[in-house]
Amino acid sequence: MQPKKFSKAMLRRLPGYLDYLKSLPEDASSNISARTMANALGLGDVLVRKDLAMVSDGGRCKTGHNRENLIKDMEDFLDYNKTANAILVGAGKMGQALLCYDGFEDYGLNIMAGFDVAPSRSKTESGKCIYPNDQMAAFCRENDVRIGIITVPGAYAQQACDLLIECGIKAIWNFAPVHLHAPKNILVQNENLAISLTALRMQLKSQE
Amino acid sequence: MQPKKFSKAMLRRLPGYLDYLKSLPEDASSNISARTMANALGLGDVLVRKDLAMVSDGGRCKTGHNRENLIKDMEDFLDYNKTANAILVGAGKMGQALLCYDGFEDYGLNIMAGFDVAPSRSKTESGKCIYPNDQMAAFCRENDVRIGIITVPGAYAQQACDLLIECGIKAIWNFAPVHLHAPKNILVQNENLAISLTALRMQLKSQE
Repeated sequence: MQPKKFSKAMLRRLPGYLDYLKSLPEDASSNISARTMANALGLGDVLVRKDLAMVSDGGRCKTGHNRENLIKDMEDFLDYNKTANAILVGAGKMGQALLCYDGFEDYGLNIMAGFDVAPSRSKTESGKCIYPNDQMAAFCRENDVRIGIITVPGAYAQQACDLLIECGIKAIWNFAPVHLHAPKNILVQNENLAISLTALRMQLKSQE
Repeated sequence: MQPKKFSKAMLRRLPGYLDYLKSLPEDASSNISARTMANALGLGDVLVRKDLAMVSDGGRCKTGHNRENLIKDMEDFLDYNKTANAILVGAGKMGQALLCYDGFEDYGLNIMAGFDVAPSRSKTESGKCIYPNDQMAAFCRENDVRIGIITVPGAYAQQACDLLIECGIKAIWNFAPVHLHAPKNILVQNENLAISLTALRMQLKSQE
């Protein structure tokens, strides 16, 4: 397919479609309609139809989409079949959890190794290595690493960010709860689980 | 302190302040100003000053806030010193990672146990138990559990949500990439790491 313009909101819906399609049982019908998907996911028909048309040429008026083909088109669109190499800085609790979690591979992300100022263990339970920070530059060069994940405490996050950029990282997934200063050509995506959790707890409290 | 009205945006900044304050070295000055914090976190002076005034009475014009007291006031405000019990449904990769991650305890969340349709192991590496779903109701009653975390695949998320609500859960932290249907009095906070990751990768691709 030719590349088309897509919105961030649409991009946020696609992984949900894909997850739904993949979660259907093996013996489900080989075709699926936008309407069925819309109902299952609590979205509007028209919206789902438009999103699917953006990603796949294969929709037919009466029969809908062939499920296997739609999964393939969606994965191609999202580049899930091309693996992007990543490293992680900060092998504390959250860092270790992400290193051990192999679910990101389904989304085309391979977290190759962890780095830490003071690696207390050289391997995680999943068999991934944790190296000292001073080996990061060589590792990134040798493995064509473009994505860096920050899981250090907030006070060390900017330092970790600077180090990643020095090592040639182009996109940063930041789990530390601080604002990072980075050049404009570096992408930063912030993720803060503690904030989500706190927001949930405070809302719960205000209801009681 | 009397409770005051606060915005969600402010709530989102507080954990960052707290993380910063706690990450300062033991031998740092016992006082800290809003300006110092604003600079360190890349925020505006006035904003930080207002936020701190909402949480703590202790700020002085010239000396700023006593750091220890400010940490305490902030933790009280955010209820971090009161532990909320939670359970998790879906002991797959993400579920196991969250069960093993003990960092949420710093934010007052105690994930007591996991539940699964087919628990293949009865204990995680962290020593937390994974029980069959049909024991959930009794467990929630006995342990006054109000928060449920969903880490099942998308197709089973609504079912997990319904089960949690039946068991008396009032707030749901949803890691499955689907929209959940829940009564209005049930709080739902969505968390989708795959979406963040995909957004980051697609932006990176569009720059190349």
